[in-house]
Amino acid sequence: MPSFLDTTDADFEASFSALLTAKREDSPDVDDTVAAIIADVRARGDEAVIELTSKFDRLDLTPETLAFSPDEIDAECAKVDAEDRAALELAAERIRAYHVRQIPEDQSWTDPEGATLGWRWTPVSAAGLYVPGGLASYPSSVLMNAIPAKVAGVERLAICAPTPDGVCNPLVLLAARLSGVETIYRIGGAQAIAALAYGTATIKPVDKITGPGNAFVAAAKRRVFGKVGIDMIAGPSEILVIADKNNDPDWIAVDLLSQAEHDESAQSLLITDDAAFGRAVADAVEKRLETLERRAIAGASWRDFGAVITVRDLDEAAELSNRIAPEHLELCVDDPDALSEKITHAGAIFLGQWTPEAIGDYIGGPNHVLPTARSARFSSGLSVMDFVKRTTLAKMTPQALRAIGPAAERLAISESLEAHGLSVRARLDRLNEGAE
Amino acid sequence: MPSFLDTTDADFEASFSALLTAKREDSPDVDDTVAAIIADVRARGDEAVIELTSKFDRLDLTPETLAFSPDEIDAECAKVDAEDRAALELAAERIRAYHVRQIPEDQSWTDPEGATLGWRWTPVSAAGLYVPGGLASYPSSVLMNAIPAKVAGVERLAICAPTPDGVCNPLVLLAARLSGVETIYRIGGAQAIAALAYGTATIKPVDKITGPGNAFVAAAKRRVFGKVGIDMIAGPSEILVIADKNNDPDWIAVDLLSQAEHDESAQSLLITDDAAFGRAVADAVEKRLETLERRAIAGASWRDFGAVITVRDLDEAAELSNRIAPEHLELCVDDPDALSEKITHAGAIFLGQWTPEAIGDYIGGPNHVLPTARSARFSSGLSVMDFVKRTTLAKMTPQALRAIGPAAERLAISESLEAHGLSVRARLDRLNEGAE
Repeated sequence: MPSFLDTTDADFEASFSALLTAKREDSPDVDDTVAAIIADVRARGDEAVIELTSKFDRLDLTPETLAFSPDEIDAECAKVDAEDRAALELAAERIRAYHVRQIPEDQSWTDPEGATLGWRWTPVSAAGLYVPGGLASYPSSVLMNAIPAKVAGVERLAICAPTPDGVCNPLVLLAARLSGVETIYRIGGAQAIAALAYGTATIKPVDKITGPGNAFVAAAKRRVFGKVGIDMIAGPSEILVIADKNNDPDWIAVDLLSQAEHDESAQSLLITDDAAFGRAVADAVEKRLETLERRAIAGASWRDFGAVITVRDLDEAAELSNRIAPEHLELCVDDPDALSEKITHAGAIFLGQWTPEAIGDYIGGPNHVLPTARSARFSSGLSVMDFVKRTTLAKMTPQALRAIGPAAERLAISESLEAHGLSVRARLDRLNEGAE
Repeated sequence: MPSFLDTTDADFEASFSALLTAKREDSPDVDDTVAAIIADVRARGDEAVIELTSKFDRLDLTPETLAFSPDEIDAECAKVDAEDRAALELAAERIRAYHVRQIPEDQSWTDPEGATLGWRWTPVSAAGLYVPGGLASYPSSVLMNAIPAKVAGVERLAICAPTPDGVCNPLVLLAARLSGVETIYRIGGAQAIAALAYGTATIKPVDKITGPGNAFVAAAKRRVFGKVGIDMIAGPSEILVIADKNNDPDWIAVDLLSQAEHDESAQSLLITDDAAFGRAVADAVEKRLETLERRAIAGASWRDFGAVITVRDLDEAAELSNRIAPEHLELCVDDPDALSEKITHAGAIFLGQWTPEAIGDYIGGPNHVLPTARSARFSSGLSVMDFVKRTTLAKMTPQALRAIGPAAERLAISESLEAHGLSVRARLDRLNEGAE
């Protein structure tokens, strides 16, 4: 059974706070192992990567077979049936159309003092995308990571996708191809992250690494951060559904289960202004759990971390939602747009009962890589912005320097940074000479 | 003596690579100490913060005196002389005018299938700004951190600024007031970061922490990352000047020294297409070092990490600059705008000989918190964007779901995520019933 909370309960605040701070994930401490793997790859390059792949993935590679050849990619892509291919193509097209709108604009202007100011955006030169192997090898994640990078203008994009026992997912290769990725290495784990960050004889280093992974991959990303850029470290997935009684309980139940089935540590929450509706949804969840393929995982998640919260009204629902700062937020209410205006912290909002969260996972257009564990309070989902950076620009004229230079000199002196002041003073003196 | 390199030298590539990878900073490993301090502040709150402040800053506080009172701030601000105040006000005004242009726009559109898509930006609710005490207590940094936060719409902004032995910098308090910051705590170190991240009885927790600090502060920021957002971990400052012979060697010399004087680990580089000019600048540096107040620091930085690189032409200069990805880049050449177009990685560019980098430190308008240690390859300086986050929006209609839902269901099935598919299928079935 999930938790049942009601804001009119005397102990609501304590129960809700406990829900907010519950630790859902046991991350094993693999940091020492990962440090050793990174040091090994830095020292021995391809040789280390090949050895570790043999050990962990039971796959024997050579420098020549580290990456899939174009023919191999062709052959794998040919295995994908027409309907899956069409679905992937439609998703790629829609994700691209959404992300193209995120390309930021350069600016330049001249102020009244004559200073020209502005900034310019440039893409990261090379990015690496990690794609997990096995069960969590999701072609949709390839699209969600690679397309924003390509839209940003990243010139070189490499994928690392482990193929344990040599088994690969043709849909992953097709997704890579549809996204414009040419190089796909069949390596994984901390060794793949180390190779992307530091390079080997065969694998060129990149400037930014994104993509989900297990505890080893996450620890390796934390360690190489600074040497390269990384995206967020994602925690288990979460959904919050705010629903009034004018919904089919079964629809809301499958929406909740669509997060619960990801992972036993996932969290599915329902907030409703109708206690009877909340119970109906909980009943519908149990009914769906009887037959769901992943009922063991989804059931554990719902039992351990699920909750149904009854509120007095939708304003209270918005307040609680903002304290939760959910990764995914469904607003299944009569006027979802009005309720949405009250939401200040959420990774992605799905408006109205015709927008199940799964649409956003695959095909809506927005990115499905979103801030978890309440980090939507301060961070955003993956976007084109993660693959560009801003260079600020400033150009003084003699007139502009005369207008604002003395204040800079004054501040430099107040901070005891004499040379800063002198660099302005030397130029102002020349101007004064010229004026005499 | 700094290094002298020439791209026509046989060993240039080796020398340049060594320059790129030289480790300039010895970060002491204070991680265990910092972990203990954070745990202590989490467990004992104000009591721990007060004890640690007494121990490290020789200052005895109570919960009531942790923050400056408005009267105390008034009294300190009154000590600032009129000229310093005017300089600070001009700087604040110019920084605000620049950053206001960074406020990102919301978007919303409806696509041909009838899906409404878009995103909305919202500010972080509360931010904390760290301001170092002692020598590196820079009022300009208060402006550079606080103004973007205020422009972003952050409601609550707190400063932690240690005051060892009770000594505070009136300019820091005035800068805070000019930036719209009301709460200023006189605490520092890892205990201040822990208090901002986790809160105490007196100190409310924030969602994002920015600002420079020593090794303890940096380690604490790394540790609380995830619980709150942080800005970058800044390394020692750097400048690269690209200058042709049509410059006054003394101007370029003081520009180089304006970074070197920050820190013995700072790095000042000159690239020129005229070897004689390079030598003239090096001579001018030596001459300025004879009298510079911070000659011990600046001299050590220039001797250990400075370099003069002679190139064949300015195209080669741009190529080397892009490999360096400098924090600050001055382009002192005849056509700085044309050269700037060739620069793909730099934190900030200063165009032409009338734009010494110090203008950007104080008063130009762009932010002076910039990516160091080659991280301009993948990251940007501080901006309004660091204090806002994006919520993506998607709203399907029945018609839109009918158009794109089947592809989402298909992809869900291909990823073995049955409930994802069911959440779409349940709705499509209803639509089909209605259509019959």
